[in-house]
Amino acid sequence: MSKTNETVRVELAERSYDIRIGENNLAEAGSFLLEQGRATHAVVLTDSHVEEPHAHKVAESLAAQDVNVDMIVVEPGEPSKSIEAAAGLWDAVLEMGADRRSVVVAVGGGVIGDLAGFIAATYARGIRFFQVPTSLLAQVDSSVGGKVGINLPKAKNMVGAFLQPIGVLIDTRTLDTLDSREYRAGMAEVVKYGVILDAALFEQLEAEVGRINAGDHDLLRGVIAQCCRLKADVVRQDERETTGLRAVLNYGHTFGHAFEALAGYGQLLHGEGVAIGMLCASRLAERLGRIDSELTDRQERLLTAVGLPTEVPDVDPDLVLKKMMHDKKVEHGRLRFVLPSRLGHVELVGDVEPQDVLASLKR
Amino acid sequence: MSKTNETVRVELAERSYDIRIGENNLAEAGSFLLEQGRATHAVVLTDSHVEEPHAHKVAESLAAQDVNVDMIVVEPGEPSKSIEAAAGLWDAVLEMGADRRSVVVAVGGGVIGDLAGFIAATYARGIRFFQVPTSLLAQVDSSVGGKVGINLPKAKNMVGAFLQPIGVLIDTRTLDTLDSREYRAGMAEVVKYGVILDAALFEQLEAEVGRINAGDHDLLRGVIAQCCRLKADVVRQDERETTGLRAVLNYGHTFGHAFEALAGYGQLLHGEGVAIGMLCASRLAERLGRIDSELTDRQERLLTAVGLPTEVPDVDPDLVLKKMMHDKKVEHGRLRFVLPSRLGHVELVGDVEPQDVLASLKR
Repeated sequence: MSKTNETVRVELAERSYDIRIGENNLAEAGSFLLEQGRATHAVVLTDSHVEEPHAHKVAESLAAQDVNVDMIVVEPGEPSKSIEAAAGLWDAVLEMGADRRSVVVAVGGGVIGDLAGFIAATYARGIRFFQVPTSLLAQVDSSVGGKVGINLPKAKNMVGAFLQPIGVLIDTRTLDTLDSREYRAGMAEVVKYGVILDAALFEQLEAEVGRINAGDHDLLRGVIAQCCRLKADVVRQDERETTGLRAVLNYGHTFGHAFEALAGYGQLLHGEGVAIGMLCASRLAERLGRIDSELTDRQERLLTAVGLPTEVPDVDPDLVLKKMMHDKKVEHGRLRFVLPSRLGHVELVGDVEPQDVLASLKR
Repeated sequence: MSKTNETVRVELAERSYDIRIGENNLAEAGSFLLEQGRATHAVVLTDSHVEEPHAHKVAESLAAQDVNVDMIVVEPGEPSKSIEAAAGLWDAVLEMGADRRSVVVAVGGGVIGDLAGFIAATYARGIRFFQVPTSLLAQVDSSVGGKVGINLPKAKNMVGAFLQPIGVLIDTRTLDTLDSREYRAGMAEVVKYGVILDAALFEQLEAEVGRINAGDHDLLRGVIAQCCRLKADVVRQDERETTGLRAVLNYGHTFGHAFEALAGYGQLLHGEGVAIGMLCASRLAERLGRIDSELTDRQERLLTAVGLPTEVPDVDPDLVLKKMMHDKKVEHGRLRFVLPSRLGHVELVGDVEPQDVLASLKR
């Protein structure tokens, strides 16, 4: 039996849904999914790292509810978020006889969620989508927001849709099987929520570094739930990323994406890029007279304590700048950054001078 | 100068927009698009049959409004609605520097509208979409409903989205350059609206066969506007095709799709398949005691008068049945048909016996 679940309700105009967070609760996947509506056919999409034991548990719990289950296992990693992979999945899902009453169930990390969500958003012009995120990053980030998609050869996440799931099931036990570097990288996003929205969360993380690094399930359940609540509050105000409000979630990401790309994809994990990117953004905020250096130092101490890198990788600063100009969140070539004004609060700052950006790459 | 335009307002929960219908009004494309919101970059997607003169006129009118215009010309015909074509377009649109403020403008028939709309729905998770349908079928069908998409190798329209345009501009003069067979095929959908929703429209068509066959612009403006209004009324009640209400629009289509596919795509135009399919559905309604043969005869006389085929093609009836079972509108293998109960009214009839379907293939 699972320990007590915690439920976060995500209330959106397009669709509202529950995120259920617990320990050892994968066997509840079938009953939880069925609570969201009738389903007779599910296509479970996973990767070969997650298939055994997580995806099989989910599939079994669906089968126990008389749902016909098909499973598709793709290669782990970013290359599976390609047009070619999507083409293969569309054909496979058609071959399985999926129709508009079928549900696509993603069991895996961010790549699986994005890819499965894109298939669900586009197959037969959209079928239902249920998520079982198994990485910390996916649990605190992809569980809320509805962003799904694939990569173009020259641009990450450039093709996609907004698709809200019918439900999200999070089992903190899946984190036990996660590579420890992946776990720490996910923690960068957790720290981010503290900086941008919730000083109390940040202080809790500072106080509980030991339990974080030990992967304490009771602590994680609460922390993950709080991150989902915080993100849901933001997304509700800007579901389609049109008002700019949602941009606060990109703290550290403009720098981070550039570092990820220039270090060579895979060299730097997304969360690692974000960790370094947050410190650059924080130094940029210092330069612009928005904060004292103490706030940057606190972030650096916490990120270091949870085992994250904090040094800017050895890349050409001009290339970093050029890369940032091509970020799809840059509108018509104007550089904008999410910068802290105090712990738990950030602002979107437009028309930042390139020389300030370059300077913030150095300590 | 264009003659007086007629405007149909499409009121939907997702987005409301205007369809402007006139004669010789392509030069208004730019100002009409700008009335819907600021735009600095447009990607005009068209095919080599429509490029000159229609798409160029649209592009010029956009440029006259200080919009940067890029044009992409694809091969005419169904093969352009492929994953490979979409992949090429995503790259091209990225190369053109399109961002979330760009607008995709479709100038062409159904293939161009579906393909351009799919690119708009998925590029950068969705950008704005403006339509200039140049075939009669696209004007009365694709102008309303938001269905966009591409084909899988084994299933037409199986990948796509619902995306409402920001506006639709219809120039009846584009019909003068349309192949006459394409024009007649589009008229099958016009007749369909009469049968399913509007006895007065059907009677008008019966009375005005001469002007229809002559391509009279004043008549066409009114008829196209009425078809758009009728479809908008249906779509408003079932935007995402979830309640079943929208299914009334599929009158003649379950049979028609099967005929199209089995005759070999391209042998039978969509509208031609629908014309024959409506008569099959009408005969099926007779068999089930829902109508008298007079209603079938009236449809056959009108379809014949506007130059449409009415004979079931020489295909294996069992294959027709099998094909219908695989239509994506068939849910979990139950055969359902939209059948007339009187002129201007249809009902969705479930669990039809295969032998009745087979019998209705014969006169």
